[in-house]
Amino acid sequence: MAESTVRWGIIGTAGIAEKVSVALAEASNATCVAVASRDKDKAEKFIADNCPGARAYGSYQELLDDDEVQVVYIPLPTGLRLEWVLKAAEKKKHVLCEKPIAANLGDARKMVDACQAAGVQFMDNTMFLLHERTTAMRAVLDDEELFGTPNHVISTFSLPLGNFDFFKDNIRLNRNMEPYGALGDLGWYCARFSLWAFRYEDPESVSCEFLEETSDGVPVTLAANLMFKGGRTASFTCSFKQAWRQWAEVVGPKCALRVEDFVIPAEINVSKFTVTRGSVSAKALTFPNEVVKEEAIKGCQQHTKVVEKLSDIAISGNLEEFWPKVAIQTQMVLSAMVTSARRQTGWVQPRERTKAKPKEEAPKGKGKGKGKSKNGEKGTASEEAEKQFLPKKPHFTRVGAINPGSSGVNLEVKVLSIQKAAGEDSLIAIVGDASGFIKLIAQGEAETSKMKEGADLVIRNASVKMMKGFVHLQVGKWGKVETSKEEFNFVPNEKTNISDTEYELVPNK
Amino acid sequence: MAESTVRWGIIGTAGIAEKVSVALAEASNATCVAVASRDKDKAEKFIADNCPGARAYGSYQELLDDDEVQVVYIPLPTGLRLEWVLKAAEKKKHVLCEKPIAANLGDARKMVDACQAAGVQFMDNTMFLLHERTTAMRAVLDDEELFGTPNHVISTFSLPLGNFDFFKDNIRLNRNMEPYGALGDLGWYCARFSLWAFRYEDPESVSCEFLEETSDGVPVTLAANLMFKGGRTASFTCSFKQAWRQWAEVVGPKCALRVEDFVIPAEINVSKFTVTRGSVSAKALTFPNEVVKEEAIKGCQQHTKVVEKLSDIAISGNLEEFWPKVAIQTQMVLSAMVTSARRQTGWVQPRERTKAKPKEEAPKGKGKGKGKSKNGEKGTASEEAEKQFLPKKPHFTRVGAINPGSSGVNLEVKVLSIQKAAGEDSLIAIVGDASGFIKLIAQGEAETSKMKEGADLVIRNASVKMMKGFVHLQVGKWGKVETSKEEFNFVPNEKTNISDTEYELVPNK
Repeated sequence: MAESTVRWGIIGTAGIAEKVSVALAEASNATCVAVASRDKDKAEKFIADNCPGARAYGSYQELLDDDEVQVVYIPLPTGLRLEWVLKAAEKKKHVLCEKPIAANLGDARKMVDACQAAGVQFMDNTMFLLHERTTAMRAVLDDEELFGTPNHVISTFSLPLGNFDFFKDNIRLNRNMEPYGALGDLGWYCARFSLWAFRYEDPESVSCEFLEETSDGVPVTLAANLMFKGGRTASFTCSFKQAWRQWAEVVGPKCALRVEDFVIPAEINVSKFTVTRGSVSAKALTFPNEVVKEEAIKGCQQHTKVVEKLSDIAISGNLEEFWPKVAIQTQMVLSAMVTSARRQTGWVQPRERTKAKPKEEAPKGKGKGKGKSKNGEKGTASEEAEKQFLPKKPHFTRVGAINPGSSGVNLEVKVLSIQKAAGEDSLIAIVGDASGFIKLIAQGEAETSKMKEGADLVIRNASVKMMKGFVHLQVGKWGKVETSKEEFNFVPNEKTNISDTEYELVPNK
Repeated sequence: MAESTVRWGIIGTAGIAEKVSVALAEASNATCVAVASRDKDKAEKFIADNCPGARAYGSYQELLDDDEVQVVYIPLPTGLRLEWVLKAAEKKKHVLCEKPIAANLGDARKMVDACQAAGVQFMDNTMFLLHERTTAMRAVLDDEELFGTPNHVISTFSLPLGNFDFFKDNIRLNRNMEPYGALGDLGWYCARFSLWAFRYEDPESVSCEFLEETSDGVPVTLAANLMFKGGRTASFTCSFKQAWRQWAEVVGPKCALRVEDFVIPAEINVSKFTVTRGSVSAKALTFPNEVVKEEAIKGCQQHTKVVEKLSDIAISGNLEEFWPKVAIQTQMVLSAMVTSARRQTGWVQPRERTKAKPKEEAPKGKGKGKGKSKNGEKGTASEEAEKQFLPKKPHFTRVGAINPGSSGVNLEVKVLSIQKAAGEDSLIAIVGDASGFIKLIAQGEAETSKMKEGADLVIRNASVKMMKGFVHLQVGKWGKVETSKEEFNFVPNEKTNISDTEYELVPNK
C-alpha cells in the first residue's frame, strides 16, 4: 500500500455502502480496510462481495478503535448518525456522512463542530458537486452573454417507493430514523443544487408544503421554494410516490440549462446537459425552442471523485471549510422548510438558533462518549420545527390585508379621526393607509395620547380583536405604537372600511 | 359564403388577434367579417394586414350591433372584458374570450351566466385542449399497464418580459387591467393542464407563493400547488422574468409523460411528447432513464381547431356546458391561489362564494346595458382575495403544533389534571393528546364544569393567550368546549409540555 493510499472503514452495510465500495476500489488514493456491522456475519458477507481483504467487525466501535482506519463512511439511518459521527471525530477519523446529515439542525451543528474541534474533515456524500459536469455547467451559467444572470432554479427528485403497506416498514419513512422523509432523502439534493446555482448564498426565506404525509407526519410528497436576494428564486418538488425522475433546470432571462439526471448520472460513462433558448414566432403561431449548447462529459465517476477528494484532504491534512459549511446550510434550509410546512406559516427565514443552550456539549476529545448519546435519536422534525420558531424580521403589511386571523401586525398609518371614547382611558381611532382604514382600540395614556387627527403612526405587533364579528385592531401589551419621525406621503384610502366586513365564525360542524 | 360558414367579429386589435385571424383564414367553417377598434384607422390597418374584406368599426358596440356577426373574439385586457362579454351576450353573439377570463371569480361567473341566459356559447381561448396531441396524451395516461394512475403534474410557463422599466408600461402587469399578473397570463395554462390531467376534478385545496411582485402587488414570479383527493398533486411555476419555457409533465408510479411545448407548439407542423421510465441499476451506480414512447402528431393547428369548434357549435346550436364549466373552475383555482399567496395562509379550499349578493345583476337580455359596467374595471386581485376569505372546514390539530401564533385551534384532548383555580369561576386545566400537553384556561361554569380529570374533550376555535411569554390555551366566547361522546383511545403524552417553552417578542427594530 503506497503512502498516498488512504485507509477507509465503513460503518453499516446499507445498500448505498456497496456503491462507496465501488468508489473505493476505483479511487487512485484510497482503499477499504474495514467494515463494521452489528452482525459480524453481515460484515463478512459484505467484504466478500465488495472489498475482499478488509477486516470485519461486529460493532461500530471496534472499527473506530482500529488505528489503521483514517476515514469512516457513515451510511447509517439519519436518526443514528449523530452518535457515530461524534464518536468517529473523537477517534480522529475523517468523516464521509450520508444525507440528510442529521435529524435536526442542532445535531448537524454538533457534528461539524465535533469534527472541527478534532481536526478532521467533515463531508457529506452529495456526489454531484464533484462531477466534472457540474464544473462545465458553472462555466455556462457564468457566461453572461449567452445566459444572462441566472434568476431561477427548478428541480425534481422522485422515486416510486411503492404503496403505503410497503412504506410502513421502510426506514425512509420512519419518523425516528428519517424525520425529514422525502425532504431529507430527496429534497437534500434539490436544495443543494439550488444553493450551488446561486453560489451558496443564504436564501432570504423559504417555504414548503407537504402534499402528502404518512400518518406519522413524515413527508412523502412536497413542494418547496427558496427566495434569494433580488427576486431570484428556486422551486423543487420531491416524492416517494412518483416515477424515478431527477431533473434540474437553471433559468436566466435568455436561456434555460437543463440536466435530466443531476443526482445520479443516467449512464455510467457519459453525462449530458443542454442549454435552450425559447422565443416566439410571427403572430405567436409557434414558440420555437432552440438548443444553443449540448455538452457531454465522458468518463467521470462522481462517486469515485468524492472518495478521492476526501482522501486527498486526509493525505494533505488541509481541511476544507467549504464542506461542513454547505452541509449546515443545506440542513438549515430543510429545517426551515419543515417549519413552514408544519406550521403553515408561508415564508420562513432559515437561520441557526443563536441562543441555543445545548443540554450536552459535543464531546471535543474530552470524554470517552461510550454511552448512547442522549440526543442522538431524539430530534424529530416536529421538535425541529419547534426549535426553529424564531422571531422573524418585522414585515410591514397594509390595512387592506388585515383579516380576523391577522396577528403580529406591523403598519404605517395616519389617524383619520377619533371615533369615540370606548371607556375610561381608552378610545377608538380610525386609522388608514393607501389600502383602507380600520378601527383601532387605543388603551392607556401611552396609546391614547398619540391618537391625534392627522398623526403618522408606526404600529408594531398589533393584533385583531373581533367585536360582534367585526375586525378591530388593538396594540395591547405585546405591541407598540409610536409617532413616526417622518411624515408619510401616502393618501389614506377613506373608502375601503376594513372594520365594515362581517365575518362568520368557523362553523361547529 | 356557404351556409356552413360562421361569421366572426374581432373586438380589439391586440397582437393575439392576429393569430386568431390566421385561424379564421385556415378554418373550414369560419370567416372574419368585422374588426373593431376604438381607433377606426387601427381596425382598417388590421384588416388590410390580416383579413382583407372585413368591415372596420371605430367602436366595439358598433361591431356588436352588426347583425351579421355570429361569434365575437374578445382579446381585450382582462379588466375590460366583463363589460364586453355581457354586451356580446346581450346581442346573442357566441363568445371566444381570452384568458384569464375575468379580473375575479365573481365577474367570471357573471360572464358565463350571461352567455347561458342568452343562449350563446362561452369558450375561453385555451387552445391546447383541442390539439390532437392532447387526445393522444390522454390515451397514454389511460393506459394503466404502461403508466399506472397519474398522481402528479408539474408544469412551467415563463416569458422574459424584460426588466422592470419595461414592466411599468406593460399591460400584463397593470393591476387594474391584469390583476392576476403572471398567474393569470401564464398560470392559467398550467392550472388548466393540471385540471385536464386529473379529468377536471375540483382540487381539495390549493396553495401559492408569490416569489416576486410589482410594487403594485401584481405577481411576476410564483409557485403554486394543487391537492386532489387521494394524495394526487400538481405543482407549477410561472414567471415574466425567466427564459421562454412551457413544459409540462404528468407523472404516475411507473412513468413520466413529458411535453416540452404544451401551451403553444414549438413547431408549426409537428407536436411531440415523450414517455420515460426511470430506474436504478446495480449498486445504484446509475439511474437509467428509458424512453418507452415518443409520439409526433403532424399537421394539427390548435388555433384553427378552436375556431372550428366554436363555429361548429354556432352552426348546430348545441351549446356545450363543458367550456364555461372549465373556465369557471380554472378561474376559481387561480382566485384561491391569490388568497393563499396574499394572506400567507397556506392551503386554501377553492370554492365559489355562495352567499354573494351582487350589487348589479348580470343583464339577461332585460336592459340595454349601454353604460360602462360598474364592476367591469373594479375587481382587483386584492378584492378578490377579500371575497374568498371564507370559513374553512374545521381542521383538527395536535397540542404539539400549538405556538404563539395559533388561532382557531380545534383539538381532541384528555384532561390530565386540574392545576389550580385561576380566579373566581375559572381554573387552569392541564390537557393533552399524544403529542404533548398544555395549560388550558377555563372560564365560566359552562367550561369549568367539563374540566374533570380523565375527561375527553372536543375543543373548537380556541385561541392562544400568552402569559408572561408562555403559551396558554383559552376557549373564550368565540370557541366551544364539549365532552366527547366517545372515549379517545390515545395515550396522552405527559412529557412534552407545550406551555413550558418561553417565546420572545418580535423585536421592535
